[in-house]
Amino acid sequence: MSHTTILPPMTPGPVRLGPEALTALRPAAATIEDGFWRERREVNARTAIPQGPALLESAGNLHNLRLVAGAAEGGFRGDYPFMDSDVYKWLEAASWQLAGSAPGEGNPASLRLAEDVDRIVALVAAAQREDGYLNTWFQAGKGDGPYSDLRWGHELYCAGHLIQAAVAHHRATGSDRLLDVARRFADHVDALFGLPGSGKPIDGFDGHPEVETALVELYRETGERRYLELAGYFVDRHGHGLIGGEAYCQDRVPLREAVNVEGHAVRQLYLLAGAADLAAETGEHELRAAAERLWNAMTTTKTHLTGGLGAHHDQEEFGDPYELPNERAYCETCAAVASVHWNWRMALLTGEARYSDLIERTLYNGFLAGMSQDGETWLYVNPLQVRDGYTDVGDDHSARRTRWFRCACCPPNVMRLLASLEHYLASTDGQGVQLHQYATGRYTGQAAGEDLVVSVHTSYPWQGGITVTVEESPAGQPWTLSLRVPQWCERYTVRVGGEPVDAAGAVRDGWLRLERAWAAGETVELRLDVAPRLTTADARVDAVRGCVAMERGPLVYCLEQADHDGGGLDDIVLDTAQPLADRPRPDLLGGVTTVTAAGRRRGTAARQAGWWPYRSCAPGRPRRTRPGPASDAAPAPAAAAHEDADADAVEQLELTAIPYYAWANREVGSMRVWLPTS
Amino acid sequence: MSHTTILPPMTPGPVRLGPEALTALRPAAATIEDGFWRERREVNARTAIPQGPALLESAGNLHNLRLVAGAAEGGFRGDYPFMDSDVYKWLEAASWQLAGSAPGEGNPASLRLAEDVDRIVALVAAAQREDGYLNTWFQAGKGDGPYSDLRWGHELYCAGHLIQAAVAHHRATGSDRLLDVARRFADHVDALFGLPGSGKPIDGFDGHPEVETALVELYRETGERRYLELAGYFVDRHGHGLIGGEAYCQDRVPLREAVNVEGHAVRQLYLLAGAADLAAETGEHELRAAAERLWNAMTTTKTHLTGGLGAHHDQEEFGDPYELPNERAYCETCAAVASVHWNWRMALLTGEARYSDLIERTLYNGFLAGMSQDGETWLYVNPLQVRDGYTDVGDDHSARRTRWFRCACCPPNVMRLLASLEHYLASTDGQGVQLHQYATGRYTGQAAGEDLVVSVHTSYPWQGGITVTVEESPAGQPWTLSLRVPQWCERYTVRVGGEPVDAAGAVRDGWLRLERAWAAGETVELRLDVAPRLTTADARVDAVRGCVAMERGPLVYCLEQADHDGGGLDDIVLDTAQPLADRPRPDLLGGVTTVTAAGRRRGTAARQAGWWPYRSCAPGRPRRTRPGPASDAAPAPAAAAHEDADADAVEQLELTAIPYYAWANREVGSMRVWLPTS
Repeated sequence: MSHTTILPPMTPGPVRLGPEALTALRPAAATIEDGFWRERREVNARTAIPQGPALLESAGNLHNLRLVAGAAEGGFRGDYPFMDSDVYKWLEAASWQLAGSAPGEGNPASLRLAEDVDRIVALVAAAQREDGYLNTWFQAGKGDGPYSDLRWGHELYCAGHLIQAAVAHHRATGSDRLLDVARRFADHVDALFGLPGSGKPIDGFDGHPEVETALVELYRETGERRYLELAGYFVDRHGHGLIGGEAYCQDRVPLREAVNVEGHAVRQLYLLAGAADLAAETGEHELRAAAERLWNAMTTTKTHLTGGLGAHHDQEEFGDPYELPNERAYCETCAAVASVHWNWRMALLTGEARYSDLIERTLYNGFLAGMSQDGETWLYVNPLQVRDGYTDVGDDHSARRTRWFRCACCPPNVMRLLASLEHYLASTDGQGVQLHQYATGRYTGQAAGEDLVVSVHTSYPWQGGITVTVEESPAGQPWTLSLRVPQWCERYTVRVGGEPVDAAGAVRDGWLRLERAWAAGETVELRLDVAPRLTTADARVDAVRGCVAMERGPLVYCLEQADHDGGGLDDIVLDTAQPLADRPRPDLLGGVTTVTAAGRRRGTAARQAGWWPYRSCAPGRPRRTRPGPASDAAPAPAAAAHEDADADAVEQLELTAIPYYAWANREVGSMRVWLPTS
Repeated sequence: MSHTTILPPMTPGPVRLGPEALTALRPAAATIEDGFWRERREVNARTAIPQGPALLESAGNLHNLRLVAGAAEGGFRGDYPFMDSDVYKWLEAASWQLAGSAPGEGNPASLRLAEDVDRIVALVAAAQREDGYLNTWFQAGKGDGPYSDLRWGHELYCAGHLIQAAVAHHRATGSDRLLDVARRFADHVDALFGLPGSGKPIDGFDGHPEVETALVELYRETGERRYLELAGYFVDRHGHGLIGGEAYCQDRVPLREAVNVEGHAVRQLYLLAGAADLAAETGEHELRAAAERLWNAMTTTKTHLTGGLGAHHDQEEFGDPYELPNERAYCETCAAVASVHWNWRMALLTGEARYSDLIERTLYNGFLAGMSQDGETWLYVNPLQVRDGYTDVGDDHSARRTRWFRCACCPPNVMRLLASLEHYLASTDGQGVQLHQYATGRYTGQAAGEDLVVSVHTSYPWQGGITVTVEESPAGQPWTLSLRVPQWCERYTVRVGGEPVDAAGAVRDGWLRLERAWAAGETVELRLDVAPRLTTADARVDAVRGCVAMERGPLVYCLEQADHDGGGLDDIVLDTAQPLADRPRPDLLGGVTTVTAAGRRRGTAARQAGWWPYRSCAPGRPRRTRPGPASDAAPAPAAAAHEDADADAVEQLELTAIPYYAWANREVGSMRVWLPTS
């Protein structure tokens, strides 16, 4: 089979825009050579990804492929029709990993990984039906047959992950092997799904979006516009009640008419990533406007401080506006991954810094918390509080780290984002380079058709200094170095060649733009003030009324029980009148900077007496004063009057906060991000 | 078939203690003749209960019975293996209703109801299998056969409701017809379930408790100790992992070892009702101690202000201690019913007033909200807040009233409790009468083996005056009139024969005890101060920090959007410095007293500027002040600095609160119980 291949303009990675794409920015080549993310990526490369095949084996995913390929006996293993997607996400992660580390004699780990990939790709190919269909659940006889249950069948969701894995595999290795499988499945779908009157037998879409963004990537990889058109068809068939009309399946309202994000968070976000991809490739205004409108509504009303998304455990869905609970924040790790995917597409589409602000917040907090520091265990949900009396019922949605999940969507999602992270850091608009995130490495932009290269050295996020050195520059050609000044940052300084620059004039909409005819060796020093700070929320966020959170740079902090002897965290109060301090702790949690604050623990006298946790306080009078005399006879004391608690004994203590991403890596205990101030 | 019947000591009702029961109190005969509950019971009798058969017909429940009886064709209708239980709960409600209103020519409605009951009892009898088994789901071929899925099969749960209906039917009508069906099923179960070594083939229990308390009632009705023993077996087999070990199924920890309520709230509460029944009949100390321990833990840490129980939508379960969300309070209507059942058994067992305190709070708030004022629509969940931007996804758990539910457990549960409500009001200890709740009616206690009768006249809960008149008294025999002084009440007065009494000395542990040789015609006037009050919560209830609620007497109040023009409720603040006022409103919501308070609506300047709903505030300084100078060069303003919102424009307004039980009976809109004070 033959098809067009777009020549790679950069190292292999996701979101390789098509030649006709209409975006403000295009991804820039980048490497991550040292520092914070390098360390996390090494855990991913050394532990998480290599363990994937064994975990997929023990969970039954690989067995299911063999079963359908006729190479194993027994029944389907696992509980979900989307077991295959875990395999595909792992293949995608492994492919990006291989793209960054050449296999060979000097690199036996990569060689083993390449062998694992080859073996599993062969298994996927062997499992595919003659007509291109591929889903082990239905092929194993579960359910009522292919496409019988678009709402829950997840076939196109799995197809989407297969396509994304195939695109990654093709970009990373040049091999057509998995791409052929993906195209045959995509062609099978394309032949079946279409509008009434199109001659295609099914008018519908999958209850779990994913194939939309994948089909745009397949178009980018193959040049076949059919795939782009099919993606557009799927995006626009949502919201017309074709598969039941539920918000959960993104079928309650068409995306173009929606006013806020709703339903299952990951589904909503994957659909929005697909919409942004379509807007990027087609320049279609209405779709872009819908995505921008939903982004504004989501960030303003439905985003946790950690960048976490999805307030409800039930239905894994977004809550109502300003409904942002702490202990029941669902904030699925997959939703953080999906948010980064969508926001990067919006950043490229619009050139606006705020999308990368949200990416930064998500990466350092809600996303990274999903993987343990050793890469061995995972969190599916990422709450902002674990109470002293937390009962672990031991399911996937436990606030305790788990080796693997019954529904194991999150771990390979983390793996694929970490393995491709360098592709979310920088862009070019053809007139320079934009640095969206700060990591020590090299970044290649373009100006006037020529490459330009800058390097970055930084200890970010622990320190706020970022040194950018021009490594290669087109001779005499002016171009713009754009540095994102994070939304969290209230003070910063800029020096060019050691000389202070009036940054205020050079910053607009979050971008510090420095236009020069840059020469190799020139440096820019951006210094962001990462002093620890207290944060409050909009008064409508009821869940955190009367509370503050601690932040430092892009990092949200939390208290963990392990750092606070003598009791739990439910009675701790932060004293906002005292300054915060920070302290580098190379010995702690792989090396973190802690934030300390003055606080106290409420005495037991502050608690309600008796069995009822509520008590009356008279209007117009101080709390706990009794109301006036009754209408006749001598007043009798209340039968169940509470003890007066004004004389409260308190215990002063220093509060030690750790970065939220590092929680749940020590002994089990309570945790909280938002702290009462009284 | 023959069996022993305990002679009725009082009018037909639930919890007719056995002759050997070891309780502090025994239920007293009572009638409700006027006032608040009479009005609600008339709606129940005139609208809710009579509509039951048609609703059970359209939902498929009656079809399923006919199907299994061979009197209908087609498949099973409905989604749940416990469809039968709705029928049984309706039969129970209708039976209690018939017990209180003699059918006959003068009462055509009761005659029709009796005909409906006879018809449906015949249908149930016809559906029963020859061996006694009865469950239409499994008999219709759904699932893998009887008792194949104890975790989710609900067969014994349905059996429990069948038994309760049969006991009610027998007590109300004297007919053995349904009781015979129930006994045959109970005997079938008794032959199958038992400890290893008992010779019985199954060692296990139903994932949804209910049969435990029902079997104790069956013992009470028949005198057969086998049923009591079987109930004891089931209660004690929970918590050993026999059906999977989940908290959801009350299988994580044995009841005798549990330290707090957990898992599915209704399951926990029904199990505790069974445990209390067992302790009542056997006097067993350990079971009573466990129930008391769990009651203390539950009320102190897991009960909403409305008496609502169950914090999580997911798994319909209790949350962690002090996790009491407002908008996501699950507070299932069935849990309120179950709480009343359990608490009444505890009140009888111990004689302590606090159990009836919780019954009162539950009845007037979390329970009664479940039925609309016209008896036509229902709430499954009872949140304490509905946000301005609430999205109704239209499922059973919507914060909007619904005609009937796909899982219709709640409506017939409300019906059966309202139809038997007079049995939860009064008790006797053989030396007088205890009035637990206040409703205009007659109450019959005992002293020295003789009956005594008191009548009550009251406009409670709208007014706090309660007049008790001795109607019949054993001549010259001293006995004690005990009146519960509610836990919410901080001031009250007592007069006997018009003369003030020093109540403080006469009240202990919530009971006002007046011992006299009472003569007919003597009166006691208890006046409870029902002035509106503000209520705060234990500092550990994070969800309501910085908020107060309004209460008046036993009623919790809430704001509804319908009473507040010009915007929603999310920005409303209550001014605690101004007094509350109350106002009778006979025109409103069937006649309520409203509570008014001074308040304001925050101006838009109080909201976060920009897209991020969080902002920094420097430690040690007032909120919104910037931190000190950065390390070098001139400080630059923040790129994404928020507008200063100190100059906030506010709108003053009068807040009008209605009783929580009456919410959601007008146009759709937001609602909230807890109100911010700043």
